[in-house]
Amino acid sequence: MIERVQLDQSSSKHLYIQLYSQLKELIERRKIKSHTKLPSIRKFAKELGVNNVTIVNAYNLLEEEELVYKKVGSGTYVAPIVELKDDIYLDEEVYIDEDTKFIEEKKRGSKEGKIINFATAAPTPDLFPIKPFKRLLNKVLDRDGGYAFGYQKSQGYSPLRKSISQYIGKCQIEASIDEIQIISGAQQGIDILAKTFLDYGDKVFVERPTYPGAISVFKSRHADIREVPIRKDGIDLDLLEEELEKEKPKFLYLMPNFQNPTGYSYSQEKKERILKLAEEYDLLIIEDDCLSDLNYGVGYGENKFLALKAMDKDDRVIYIKSFSKIFMPGLRLAFLIIPERYFDDILLSKYMSDIFTDGLVQRVLDLYFREEFWEDQINKLKQTYQKRYEVMVVALNKYLPQEVKFITPQGGLNLWLELPQGLTVKKLYDKAFAAGVNIAPGTVFYYTQPQEDKVRLSIAAVTEEEIKEGIKRLGKIISKELSNNKDWDNSWMPMV
Amino acid sequence: MIERVQLDQSSSKHLYIQLYSQLKELIERRKIKSHTKLPSIRKFAKELGVNNVTIVNAYNLLEEEELVYKKVGSGTYVAPIVELKDDIYLDEEVYIDEDTKFIEEKKRGSKEGKIINFATAAPTPDLFPIKPFKRLLNKVLDRDGGYAFGYQKSQGYSPLRKSISQYIGKCQIEASIDEIQIISGAQQGIDILAKTFLDYGDKVFVERPTYPGAISVFKSRHADIREVPIRKDGIDLDLLEEELEKEKPKFLYLMPNFQNPTGYSYSQEKKERILKLAEEYDLLIIEDDCLSDLNYGVGYGENKFLALKAMDKDDRVIYIKSFSKIFMPGLRLAFLIIPERYFDDILLSKYMSDIFTDGLVQRVLDLYFREEFWEDQINKLKQTYQKRYEVMVVALNKYLPQEVKFITPQGGLNLWLELPQGLTVKKLYDKAFAAGVNIAPGTVFYYTQPQEDKVRLSIAAVTEEEIKEGIKRLGKIISKELSNNKDWDNSWMPMV
Repeated sequence: MIERVQLDQSSSKHLYIQLYSQLKELIERRKIKSHTKLPSIRKFAKELGVNNVTIVNAYNLLEEEELVYKKVGSGTYVAPIVELKDDIYLDEEVYIDEDTKFIEEKKRGSKEGKIINFATAAPTPDLFPIKPFKRLLNKVLDRDGGYAFGYQKSQGYSPLRKSISQYIGKCQIEASIDEIQIISGAQQGIDILAKTFLDYGDKVFVERPTYPGAISVFKSRHADIREVPIRKDGIDLDLLEEELEKEKPKFLYLMPNFQNPTGYSYSQEKKERILKLAEEYDLLIIEDDCLSDLNYGVGYGENKFLALKAMDKDDRVIYIKSFSKIFMPGLRLAFLIIPERYFDDILLSKYMSDIFTDGLVQRVLDLYFREEFWEDQINKLKQTYQKRYEVMVVALNKYLPQEVKFITPQGGLNLWLELPQGLTVKKLYDKAFAAGVNIAPGTVFYYTQPQEDKVRLSIAAVTEEEIKEGIKRLGKIISKELSNNKDWDNSWMPMV
Repeated sequence: MIERVQLDQSSSKHLYIQLYSQLKELIERRKIKSHTKLPSIRKFAKELGVNNVTIVNAYNLLEEEELVYKKVGSGTYVAPIVELKDDIYLDEEVYIDEDTKFIEEKKRGSKEGKIINFATAAPTPDLFPIKPFKRLLNKVLDRDGGYAFGYQKSQGYSPLRKSISQYIGKCQIEASIDEIQIISGAQQGIDILAKTFLDYGDKVFVERPTYPGAISVFKSRHADIREVPIRKDGIDLDLLEEELEKEKPKFLYLMPNFQNPTGYSYSQEKKERILKLAEEYDLLIIEDDCLSDLNYGVGYGENKFLALKAMDKDDRVIYIKSFSKIFMPGLRLAFLIIPERYFDDILLSKYMSDIFTDGLVQRVLDLYFREEFWEDQINKLKQTYQKRYEVMVVALNKYLPQEVKFITPQGGLNLWLELPQGLTVKKLYDKAFAAGVNIAPGTVFYYTQPQEDKVRLSIAAVTEEEIKEGIKRLGKIISKELSNNKDWDNSWMPMV
């Protein structure tokens, strides 16, 4: 087994991370059997020409993931392949409801080799700004000591709110620190707003398709959810107005830029018209924005992908902004911008949800803003994602049969494919998974009557190489299915 | 102003913290007027004989609390006295409902000098294990890098669940890692369980009085809340059975050890009887436990204050354990122990609430457990609190008129006083506050018909000196009120 491990001393990747990754792969691909004893630390270190601590660190990481176990005084052993259930990593994109709960994730939990994962929109750890974060964390601890760990205001740490107020100003949104409510991630924001506004049977309008984590929350409040189709330039305003004439919703839940799952953005005209409708029908809009910073075509802060909130003169919009996609998902930090009349009610809902958000992380993020790493990080991410996006678009055009339809959103992390007639996403999903490619079936983004011919592909967790390889495999599968269908169709034709 | 500042070089307290505290007090007591320019850094440092960085740090801390503001190129100025609203620090003990929302806190937000705060049960920052925490935080960052910031399992970081399983074993509770669900604080636990179990009109039984943060959540789910009185040895079982014969609740929400607000603990016999009732009536019990580690009379892990969960053979108890009181409140970490039949439903509710809990902090806490700082920290806290508790009991006996009734719970952070007839807590609250003493009015802990003669005093955020001084002041106020009442009563008597 030792001979299978190859460490690259010249790589920028830590040696123990290299070792950990390689051992992990060997274990997950079952190249090393369960209960096999791994080499002793000293022996392994000597063979590889590294320090003992490299081996120790790698073994510790493996132990944490329960891929190995330790016997006191004896050594480190490969763990038995765990039940899939233990391995479910939920991410924001997974649809859960009473019937299909966890089925999708269980499938995804497969341990058969390395999967090319187009299914998750959660960024991979290599994109996180670890070094500055660590430095700032220590700075906060030295500066504030225990105060960083005490009870915090439910509204959030006020210097952070001030920093956010400045940051968001660059996105053309004016918000005073009073209007900013810190929350523990965008999902909590949706939950808090549902708690504040929704009662049994209340109407909520959402885009169709939409983010399933929002649907789950609205369902849990027993709201009456109405789906209004989204087009390539935004929600269908005619159908929306038809619905509005029939009944008034408590709010509209919208993602006007790089919508999840479609990647579509509202045209400027639609944004204006929807705000007019909001005035006309006295509507509240919840705008969920996690990706508008990732606008590849235009410079930072340019106008093309304005938030509704930036145009909201009548205080009709509550704005949710997540840092998960553009900073670090693990930190659970996001914020709301709230019109004054809702301050107290929303603060109460936040209080009921978790009293306040982790004070340490709020302080670190504040320093991060103050030291102006923010734009660097966004720019770095934008560059990385833009390259992936471009590789993705080229690959889609090159490898997919032209019967597959999609548009190129010029931003965000998601592409939304429409499969040709006769090919369901369920079929494609199973075949792709068998070929080591994970996709998000479009069905999970619908509340009623899920469409069977849609696929969401995300570039958050795949390298450029993986994109090429993954789309190539998808293309092969789809082409094969199409020609099978053709054969099948032909069999119904009179022979000529 | 400079002459009012006195730094103690021999103190273990950092100089900048000393300076910060003293300036803060001067500003809050309005001894320095708004918009006064503070001394320049260099000048101040020279006068005090300290490094420039001491002044910089102190000014930064003040700026964060918005007590001062900076003008570029000019210096640091005292901020105008802010609106009270900006200054509200909510804590778990504050009751909020539609009518009285924030009134209590606004009152408490007073900036008139240093208040002796018996109202909060949140520990002060000096009790937190900052140094080991910092070391472990860096260890985690070095070891895991970006993985500490990635998406986490909704159920929680599995090594931490393993550590908790071992820790809780010492409290006689057997729980496998599958049964443990990590949550972002106990308040989130209550919210998640309410989401899972409560629908419009469902019955919930709670102790009377109880924790108001739970009441708020149950109300928000439109539950039908029934209060069953708690006695000195636990909930009134006769009244409970009477209620049970009428109707079945979705669950009972109980705090069997060092109940909040009363400090009362259930007798072992009552604990056994309530589990029998649970079997007989097929009940689910939610046991909220944040203080049972602080059992002053007995050794760590001894049996006297067993959790219901430790005696729960039929899986009728869901256990909520917070780390806020015994580790660090700011971290928002707690856990549930859940019977298997609820795994999926509760995981879904967690997912809807905030997807997962901060992964970095979970990793640090895990190391903290593994390096076995845990028992040291509990023991240190126990010692500190036990001393305060003893000082408190002596002071209550010494300074309060004997007409004030209370029992000594031998653990926890709270004492529950019953005022003599004729003295309402509202009156006492106002007079105490004017005398610089903050108390928690008992009224906030009732759902219906709040009792007017109860007070909760907490020892979490007061020094021994403050306890003596605060109780002395309270004693004076109560004695004076009693003698006034007597005079007043006498005025109705025929003169003799």
